[in-house]
Amino acid sequence: MRVSLIQMTVTDDKAGNLVRAKELSKRAEGADIILLPEMFCCPYAPEAFVGNAEPFGGAVTDALREIAAERNATVIGGSMPELDGGRIYNTSFVFGRNGELVARHRKAHLFDVDIEGGQRFFESETLSAGCGATVFETGSCRIGVAICFDLRFSSFINAMHADVLAVPAAFNMTTGPMHWELLFRARAVDGQCFVFGCAPARNEGASYVSYAHSIVADPWGRVIADAGEEETVLNTEIDIDEIKRARRQIPIGL
Amino acid sequence: MRVSLIQMTVTDDKAGNLVRAKELSKRAEGADIILLPEMFCCPYAPEAFVGNAEPFGGAVTDALREIAAERNATVIGGSMPELDGGRIYNTSFVFGRNGELVARHRKAHLFDVDIEGGQRFFESETLSAGCGATVFETGSCRIGVAICFDLRFSSFINAMHADVLAVPAAFNMTTGPMHWELLFRARAVDGQCFVFGCAPARNEGASYVSYAHSIVADPWGRVIADAGEEETVLNTEIDIDEIKRARRQIPIGL
Repeated sequence: MRVSLIQMTVTDDKAGNLVRAKELSKRAEGADIILLPEMFCCPYAPEAFVGNAEPFGGAVTDALREIAAERNATVIGGSMPELDGGRIYNTSFVFGRNGELVARHRKAHLFDVDIEGGQRFFESETLSAGCGATVFETGSCRIGVAICFDLRFSSFINAMHADVLAVPAAFNMTTGPMHWELLFRARAVDGQCFVFGCAPARNEGASYVSYAHSIVADPWGRVIADAGEEETVLNTEIDIDEIKRARRQIPIGL
Repeated sequence: MRVSLIQMTVTDDKAGNLVRAKELSKRAEGADIILLPEMFCCPYAPEAFVGNAEPFGGAVTDALREIAAERNATVIGGSMPELDGGRIYNTSFVFGRNGELVARHRKAHLFDVDIEGGQRFFESETLSAGCGATVFETGSCRIGVAICFDLRFSSFINAMHADVLAVPAAFNMTTGPMHWELLFRARAVDGQCFVFGCAPARNEGASYVSYAHSIVADPWGRVIADAGEEETVLNTEIDIDEIKRARRQIPIGL
């Protein structure tokens, strides 16, 4: 299975971000799955969530649908500020190879943190939380979708029993160095599954600076790919049978 | 709170191991809690489990009780092969400052693994599994006890809602380099708690070679102490208030 992570630079130009996502997706070589970053269409900032919120069926989901159909891949569309019933959610839409909607995950755990001497951010000032976990099947594979802060909730994540966990995320310069790699490796070992994290590229000029380092961890908890900090497309290939091997050799009931 | 980890060399002489544990415990400087390794009284081997099994109230628990009373500390007595009703359990007994029994944890997840090119071991050939998690309170602190392989079961561990998790353990030369530090750090971040792991010292001559590296991880997932490989007493001091700070600054419902 080939998975491409689009670690793109996100600007405050929504239309430009959609064009950039389409351009970069052309470098996803033979991808079965294309994964985009959290809030790939607008800056990670409260005013940007409000200013760029749009309902399903708008420019953002149209772009994702086009990428899926054009690349003949499942697109896990990072996330976007989704407007629904007067509320805004941090939502990941998933489109299948024919451009059909496959799944929708609304970030269930809002990022409300205030770290002494470090990052402060309150998603709940502008966003509403989704409820429940999101899993879909594709071929022989059970794929879970979680968004960023969701990853810290181990019982929530592990209850998905995913083979592949796809996580659009945007850790920052406080929590990134501290916990990014640790959490992806931990969820991989806990679930004996592959875990993919896709983040925006590092942009020191942004109000919220993404740690970047889009990552792939295998069912043994090994980091098998790390995108670094720059804008890039990380093309990876995984051996799904490694899941069975890990679960057979260290049986923990999965 | 001062916690001392007794990373002792375990031999096949049970009486000698008990004497050694008592000797080393004298180096636990002002400890509130003394933690011993998994199977501190006999080698980690099926025949040793059978040959050294004894019920509660025998030489092993007497030694633990004495250490607690003499050091005026809570002793989390690593683990021993406990004989009860014709079955043998991998059991940790906890004694309070006056030598009173405070808790008993029977390893709930038996270590049955067979890693290609690496460690093979089947506890279930000689041991029975306990059921349920074990938590006790001491002063302002909620302490969970888990044994080695239990640590891989994140929902089991995290449901304890422990402030301090004490883990007698004995990873090996396959799973140690792969997962020891990762799992202790992960459980610390998941539970925003302190996690202590105490292992036997490295003994290359044993049939099962302990990875050693007795460890302390803080509620931010930082490794704040590592005992290395040799026999040693690791005296540590932790600031319990760090738990509240972590939980307040990164709130994940704990």
